[in-house]
Amino acid sequence: MRKIAESTVRRLSLYLRYLEQSEVQGHGTISSADLARRGGTTPAQVRKDLSFFGSFGKRGLGYSVPELAAKIRDILGLKRSYRVVLVGAGRIGGALVQYPGFRQRGFHVTAIYDKDRKKVGSRWNGLVVRDVQQIASDLKKEPTDIAIVVTPAEAAQQVVDELVQAGVKAILNFAPVQLAVPPDVVVKSVNMAAELETLSFALANR
Amino acid sequence: MRKIAESTVRRLSLYLRYLEQSEVQGHGTISSADLARRGGTTPAQVRKDLSFFGSFGKRGLGYSVPELAAKIRDILGLKRSYRVVLVGAGRIGGALVQYPGFRQRGFHVTAIYDKDRKKVGSRWNGLVVRDVQQIASDLKKEPTDIAIVVTPAEAAQQVVDELVQAGVKAILNFAPVQLAVPPDVVVKSVNMAAELETLSFALANR
Repeated sequence: MRKIAESTVRRLSLYLRYLEQSEVQGHGTISSADLARRGGTTPAQVRKDLSFFGSFGKRGLGYSVPELAAKIRDILGLKRSYRVVLVGAGRIGGALVQYPGFRQRGFHVTAIYDKDRKKVGSRWNGLVVRDVQQIASDLKKEPTDIAIVVTPAEAAQQVVDELVQAGVKAILNFAPVQLAVPPDVVVKSVNMAAELETLSFALANR
Repeated sequence: MRKIAESTVRRLSLYLRYLEQSEVQGHGTISSADLARRGGTTPAQVRKDLSFFGSFGKRGLGYSVPELAAKIRDILGLKRSYRVVLVGAGRIGGALVQYPGFRQRGFHVTAIYDKDRKKVGSRWNGLVVRDVQQIASDLKKEPTDIAIVVTPAEAAQQVVDELVQAGVKAILNFAPVQLAVPPDVVVKSVNMAAELETLSFALANR
């Protein structure tokens, strides 16, 4: 179970989104061909992705939508909810806090931090922005698994060191810097400008 | 030049961001150790990354900040500007349009499309939201290299087919679906919920 490729996990996310839509539309079963289309892959790959986690579906009948959705939620660790702190009350942070997909999947932003005195104390989507200096003491009282870091690059590593020190085990990083963390902490980096630059690189080097 | 790994391109993005900061701070030269720290890698890897594209820097003196920045801009295809269309005038689209990093790097959002009649005609960051049905005819008059797709999953493939038909060669996709495109079109997908799910997966499967 430990050595699942990230590409598989990403496809499971896509399958789950499709299953949830199918549930809303009242479909009881779904074929591996349908899932394959959504995941940009082949029916054989769908069956392989799912076979890592046990045996599902009946040949010729497809998968039960609610059962498979529940199983993938379980695999992805979505049967529980997660407390998430956001560090950096800027524009990207604002869009993230309001992103309905997070809450729907059980990711609850419970605190927002910034170092800007003008932002500290202001109300953001029902939460009061707190001083970044409080992080360590807050997390002692309110243990949190996940942090989203949307600080400038030069501030990110120090913030992350504090978060890790305070027991945070998973970080979604939007700062344009590679973060150093201990082996038991997982970091995912998203860098909008870099995404566009991989496109301009591809356009320039065809 | 064609077979550069995406991980190298991403590090080049990080180096460039650091070089630009160093430029602002008035530093004339920079060492591979400094660049390595920012890129989360080793000085040897920095030298290897840069050696793909020619010979830079002087042993013991480091790299000239403005020269290396110019060279990386060149490598990443950032010496020109790009017209970008945005399809989907929702919250994420709104944050993207306002993201200063895009414009700074020469990515100019020139048109925004939506299919919602209530949004079409409204003003967004200086642009009037257009009807998505105009895309094909607009792109004939205003050729565009890059599109950012922020539609619901079920609408994305059809939109992308039209974009590709109209000559768009690079797509940044935020819809939670894998897109099918011809081999000469490059797609980068960003999926916020999936990023968080790779974290919850890691937390659940330790």
